[in-house]
Amino acid sequence: MPLHLDFTNMMAGQLPGGAGITPSQWAHGASRFATAHARVLAQHAAGTLGFIDLPTDEDALAATLAVARRHGGQVDDVLLLGIGGSALGPIALRSALRPPHWNELTVEQRDGLPRLHTLDNVDPASISAMLSRLSLARTLVLVVSKSGGTVETMAQYLIVRAALDETLGEREARARLLFVTDPEVGALRAVARAEGITTLDIPANVGGRFSVLSPVGLLPAALIGIDVRGVLAGAAACAARCASPELATNPAGVFAVMQWLADREHGAHVQALMPYADPLRDIAAWFVQLWAESLGKIRADGTSVGPTPLPALGATDQHAQVQLFMEGPADKTVTFIKVDGREGEGLIPSRHAERPELGYLGGHTLGRLLEVERQATAGALAARGRLNATITVPAVTAQSVGALLYLFELATAYAGELYEVNAFDQPGVELGKQFAYAMLGRPGSEAARAQWDALPKPDPRWQV
Amino acid sequence: MPLHLDFTNMMAGQLPGGAGITPSQWAHGASRFATAHARVLAQHAAGTLGFIDLPTDEDALAATLAVARRHGGQVDDVLLLGIGGSALGPIALRSALRPPHWNELTVEQRDGLPRLHTLDNVDPASISAMLSRLSLARTLVLVVSKSGGTVETMAQYLIVRAALDETLGEREARARLLFVTDPEVGALRAVARAEGITTLDIPANVGGRFSVLSPVGLLPAALIGIDVRGVLAGAAACAARCASPELATNPAGVFAVMQWLADREHGAHVQALMPYADPLRDIAAWFVQLWAESLGKIRADGTSVGPTPLPALGATDQHAQVQLFMEGPADKTVTFIKVDGREGEGLIPSRHAERPELGYLGGHTLGRLLEVERQATAGALAARGRLNATITVPAVTAQSVGALLYLFELATAYAGELYEVNAFDQPGVELGKQFAYAMLGRPGSEAARAQWDALPKPDPRWQV
Repeated sequence: MPLHLDFTNMMAGQLPGGAGITPSQWAHGASRFATAHARVLAQHAAGTLGFIDLPTDEDALAATLAVARRHGGQVDDVLLLGIGGSALGPIALRSALRPPHWNELTVEQRDGLPRLHTLDNVDPASISAMLSRLSLARTLVLVVSKSGGTVETMAQYLIVRAALDETLGEREARARLLFVTDPEVGALRAVARAEGITTLDIPANVGGRFSVLSPVGLLPAALIGIDVRGVLAGAAACAARCASPELATNPAGVFAVMQWLADREHGAHVQALMPYADPLRDIAAWFVQLWAESLGKIRADGTSVGPTPLPALGATDQHAQVQLFMEGPADKTVTFIKVDGREGEGLIPSRHAERPELGYLGGHTLGRLLEVERQATAGALAARGRLNATITVPAVTAQSVGALLYLFELATAYAGELYEVNAFDQPGVELGKQFAYAMLGRPGSEAARAQWDALPKPDPRWQV
Repeated sequence: MPLHLDFTNMMAGQLPGGAGITPSQWAHGASRFATAHARVLAQHAAGTLGFIDLPTDEDALAATLAVARRHGGQVDDVLLLGIGGSALGPIALRSALRPPHWNELTVEQRDGLPRLHTLDNVDPASISAMLSRLSLARTLVLVVSKSGGTVETMAQYLIVRAALDETLGEREARARLLFVTDPEVGALRAVARAEGITTLDIPANVGGRFSVLSPVGLLPAALIGIDVRGVLAGAAACAARCASPELATNPAGVFAVMQWLADREHGAHVQALMPYADPLRDIAAWFVQLWAESLGKIRADGTSVGPTPLPALGATDQHAQVQLFMEGPADKTVTFIKVDGREGEGLIPSRHAERPELGYLGGHTLGRLLEVERQATAGALAARGRLNATITVPAVTAQSVGALLYLFELATAYAGELYEVNAFDQPGVELGKQFAYAMLGRPGSEAARAQWDALPKPDPRWQV
């Protein structure tokens, strides 16, 4: 069991107030899923959907491990420049599979492995603070962009490159740089060719938000000692579990169909992912991009679709978002992630036994408390007819994390078919990009300039 | 100008497709606001809504500064045990007003000030990792809970207390502990009295999510050198700007009314807060609790209301959530936070001028790039008829952060009146608490046990 999905609390019958997916809705979902499954297979056979090949891409794994071995040994710090899919995957892997607060540990506590820093924005204060505290002579700089031309990453690169050149000289600077980008197109590839900078490929048919199992995620993970072979093995095991065209035996299919039906038939437009485990917190953040950017689309008939993913963390968000989940509008699903087998961890000592708020806790464990709170929250939601489901993994390991990542990627591909959208493009961000290019004077953005100039201007009536 | 709000892109007229709040809707909002304003004043006069008094509570400030001075000097680390409102405020202040990655800096880079760690969950791995890397003899432990009995915080306390007692002896352990809690009720207050542990008050009429300007936020902030007097001064200045019963001149009122009308009249149930500044990222997370837990409620007539707040960060989330904001359902508002005057920060050097993706960037600054991207995103959303607004602060200072925090708190109080809910309770989390107590065997939870046993059980048909 790399993972298990219980969706009892999504289904009509036991929930009060007529809530939940009905048998006929589920039967319709199963029929639609058969088509979705076939279309995903067909697209993969046609050479798109390269993410499906990543779990078994031994060549990419070998290339990544070789680069990590060659470059990782002599540095204290790895600095990753990237944004969106180029940063969220590496961050999720680090949080899940390295000890908490990895970057605050001493080098001994890290077994000599480097820290991993990500710059995933263009805030000038963040970048200058980062450069002021790194020793560039002991830092490896990864520049990660699928397109090879992402504006934020290019700006970061130009600044960090100038600092490297100035500190180390141009020749040594080149040796400190690693690029991860498309095999052919884009500025990073061109610079790499011109200057001989070591570069790993993101396959042309793998988009940024589906790239965590490519060198985008694997290279930084390998550099900080994560068992990347185990991550891929877990993903491959999940792929095997999700091969079936029968909805009843395909967990990725069930996840996609239950969310789609909840959105479409039950108004559950907001879909929270709520792991009850600190290490999985950033998998929720990674999922937000995957689900939002893949499914938030205009369909061929002109209608806008797409659920809104919401990140949450148990038990913490019981004190922030659960009030809304319980009593706010019934427009949400909550998917819990449970980590099994932690009931023995974190014994709570007995003390102040006379105090009612303290006395009952002694002798329990934190692991049990966390799982009791998850069950209690799931049960309370169900008691109010609020849809929820639970994914269980046996432990937070490379294998289970790889399985979770792949589960959500494949579910997203299925969901794209169910929603009848292309899950692999992002046309909606183009207009904003063009407006920014126009304001920055990038050649070719003249048409956007004219459109920009025609936009509403700040109205003095609507200022305060 | 501590802050400025431009809501042009929320209003009908210039937006395409008939989108936006109409003049008659706005007039209705202004009328409702007058009532809301009066009711908030009346409640405050009646002695509730204590958060309004915090910006000018000189006694609490003096007590907090005295404790910080007395206890802060000789420690390397401050460990805060708390969850929800007891952690989100301190985290937001640290992110906003200390250099990035404060805890990764050396003691010299921190000017001798301590690190600040928060444990805001009961994950056993996080707590044991935290204890293993702290020197308890050089650590100050803050235990923060309004009720004085929050289960997660009590569990953390029992574990950390046992470690302190064992490492330092009971007498020294008491000197390492500071409590922040209700003046009268709860286990923490009782323990403090029995054992002589230094304790600061959260006023009885201040709820957890409205407590950031009480010692909950101010004590950890003061310990790491934040200008807490400046934070309060900014909040007080914001309070003065938001005194007016006229909607047109009250920024907190405008924020509340525009969100309420967008939700009620235009289906904008999801309300994103998107600062374009890394230091303000955790203010969005703090806002999520404030807005969700205050407004997600069942009204007297039995209907469920409450918008869903969504955290975002610019420019980063342009590569994660903006596709959904642009092309997904028109069910959102986006409120940007802009930091003024950064156009000169972070010069981007020229290099690779022959590459179209790189050549145009040289000579611009990161500060300008960030603001251009914000304007471009706001404009692109407006061009598609998607509602958005911009709050501008002059810089990220103690004053402007204090002003922002207070703005959102007061807006939440107004919004509670507009939605006709009690913004200051959280009855929806009670059922889950009772279920957890029942499973843990806390005396008095027998009724919950019976209700729990009657809940739906995992159904083998809905497992995969």
